[in-house]
Amino acid sequence: MKLQDLGEFGLIDRIASQVKERTGVLLGIGDDAAALAPTTGAVTLATADMLVEGVHFDVAFSDPFTLGRKSLAVNLSDLAAMGARPRHTLLSLAIPPALSVEFLDGFTRGFLAMADEFQVALVGGDTCASMSGMVISVTALGEQRPELVVRRSTACPGDLVMVTGTLGDAALGLELLRRGERSGSAVLRHLDPLPRVAAGLMLAEARLATAMIDVSDGLLADLGHILDQSGVGAFLELARLPVSEDYGQHFVGSGSDPFLHPLTGGEDYELLFTALPEHESEIKRQLDACGVPVTVIGEIVAARGLSVMAPDGSSYNVARKGYNHFGADGIP
Amino acid sequence: MKLQDLGEFGLIDRIASQVKERTGVLLGIGDDAAALAPTTGAVTLATADMLVEGVHFDVAFSDPFTLGRKSLAVNLSDLAAMGARPRHTLLSLAIPPALSVEFLDGFTRGFLAMADEFQVALVGGDTCASMSGMVISVTALGEQRPELVVRRSTACPGDLVMVTGTLGDAALGLELLRRGERSGSAVLRHLDPLPRVAAGLMLAEARLATAMIDVSDGLLADLGHILDQSGVGAFLELARLPVSEDYGQHFVGSGSDPFLHPLTGGEDYELLFTALPEHESEIKRQLDACGVPVTVIGEIVAARGLSVMAPDGSSYNVARKGYNHFGADGIP
Repeated sequence: MKLQDLGEFGLIDRIASQVKERTGVLLGIGDDAAALAPTTGAVTLATADMLVEGVHFDVAFSDPFTLGRKSLAVNLSDLAAMGARPRHTLLSLAIPPALSVEFLDGFTRGFLAMADEFQVALVGGDTCASMSGMVISVTALGEQRPELVVRRSTACPGDLVMVTGTLGDAALGLELLRRGERSGSAVLRHLDPLPRVAAGLMLAEARLATAMIDVSDGLLADLGHILDQSGVGAFLELARLPVSEDYGQHFVGSGSDPFLHPLTGGEDYELLFTALPEHESEIKRQLDACGVPVTVIGEIVAARGLSVMAPDGSSYNVARKGYNHFGADGIP
Repeated sequence: MKLQDLGEFGLIDRIASQVKERTGVLLGIGDDAAALAPTTGAVTLATADMLVEGVHFDVAFSDPFTLGRKSLAVNLSDLAAMGARPRHTLLSLAIPPALSVEFLDGFTRGFLAMADEFQVALVGGDTCASMSGMVISVTALGEQRPELVVRRSTACPGDLVMVTGTLGDAALGLELLRRGERSGSAVLRHLDPLPRVAAGLMLAEARLATAMIDVSDGLLADLGHILDQSGVGAFLELARLPVSEDYGQHFVGSGSDPFLHPLTGGEDYELLFTALPEHESEIKRQLDACGVPVTVIGEIVAARGLSVMAPDGSSYNVARKGYNHFGADGIP
């Protein structure tokens, strides 16, 4: 079946019929706007991300279900980085008229599977035609008590720099996809990232993170945001960067720089945060209880700028500062 | 200057530097998510609209400032139709790399001019590259007390059907643009619509509208939503449809059906609402105080379906039911 046969309102009905009822939604899909009841004492956290076919995703690499999951996941990761509890989402789609209804059904199922996993309600959005590729635009709304929201701008000298999980897998996965691989843990990390919602909530609600961001543009770029906005610098040790076993294996005897992906590769969607040194063991204990590994990779210092120590103790040159959507070093 | 020279973060900084501070925004552009303080006792109204180059707009028709205004206006119109007070907006842009920074500056100025007009804060969004045309995705958040929110589903038999302003101008404007005209009131209605925010708020807060929608897809399509969702029908009189003087002039002796645009033309962004007959004079008095004309065009009836009476008293055939983004009768 083609989209033309379904029509815009048919498509919206088809999506709406799959949406589960959730508390706090007074009015969901089907009016001019959704009506959402805020939790008393909470502020609303709002974020938006756009995924463009040919820029952020390649339909040759990803099945529609996984693409739907990722479209929401990257937004939930932003809420996680604020320490927020995800609540609602709006999904806007610009769709090539030739796209099949089966593709859209798969996409919707994936998006709603991710929503269900985090008790998020799809409450609205838009559907329209695209003249070329598919464009996915998602807004996610979350909540947290204002005094618990974790910002980028509040890191202090002496804080530890910590990161959840492992780094570099998603970038390696994209490299492998481009070489024709279609499976394996790194490929999966790129295609189907899991937002660290529980970890972000725990760090915020236990007041254990002094500043936080998610690793979407690459460690150097994202740490750079914390440093710039906090007006501080940092010292990183490459030997401490957490990499997965598969990632390590891949670079044994390869000759290429094994630190490039962990430092500059985007889309790991781990949480990068700063914390008081006296909280290190408590953080490890609590995150272990969530099943989330965490690693100290460096320290915040008063002097602006970032210094990185290579495993041999020498200074590592961080010329490439992560990824720029419009810059000459291009589009992933 | 080209976008490549500015980079993604340069562009975001450039937009953020033009945003005014507003109350209720604890954290605006520049973190993983914005933090917004809800008003006590209010629910959040959330809506999203996408504008795709070549589908919703043609850069040959519109200057970037006006395009920026319209991108927000169409979302504020959805909030107006709920009777909500607009508060916050998120703006996501997929941008062709060759687009000039001057175009984006003009767009941003227009978007923020519309935001200022309605005291709306731009609090976040996303910017990324597009492989083809520009895609603009806007989310708007508003507020209202839950008992005052006006839905589509609450029209009752005996209610009057009323509409603000005039109908058909925007569709005529688009037709004229396609024929090469670049000015005049109809063209302006298409390019630079004004959302009926004050009128929507008044109707909601004085409890004068029993159901409401904005006319974005065309009167027949949008009235159809009220009828379907309320489980009622309506009787319309073509002779009562409000058209502008310019619109009327255009069709004198033209031979074409002067009712087609007012019935099926999209993008008028007027408010279509239902109301108790005993409130008619109060509504007219209050809207007159806002400077907004309003017209009774028909009545809600218990029997499902829509009957339309032509000026000569005969039945008017409403075969074409407004506009479908994916359907065979195509894209505006």
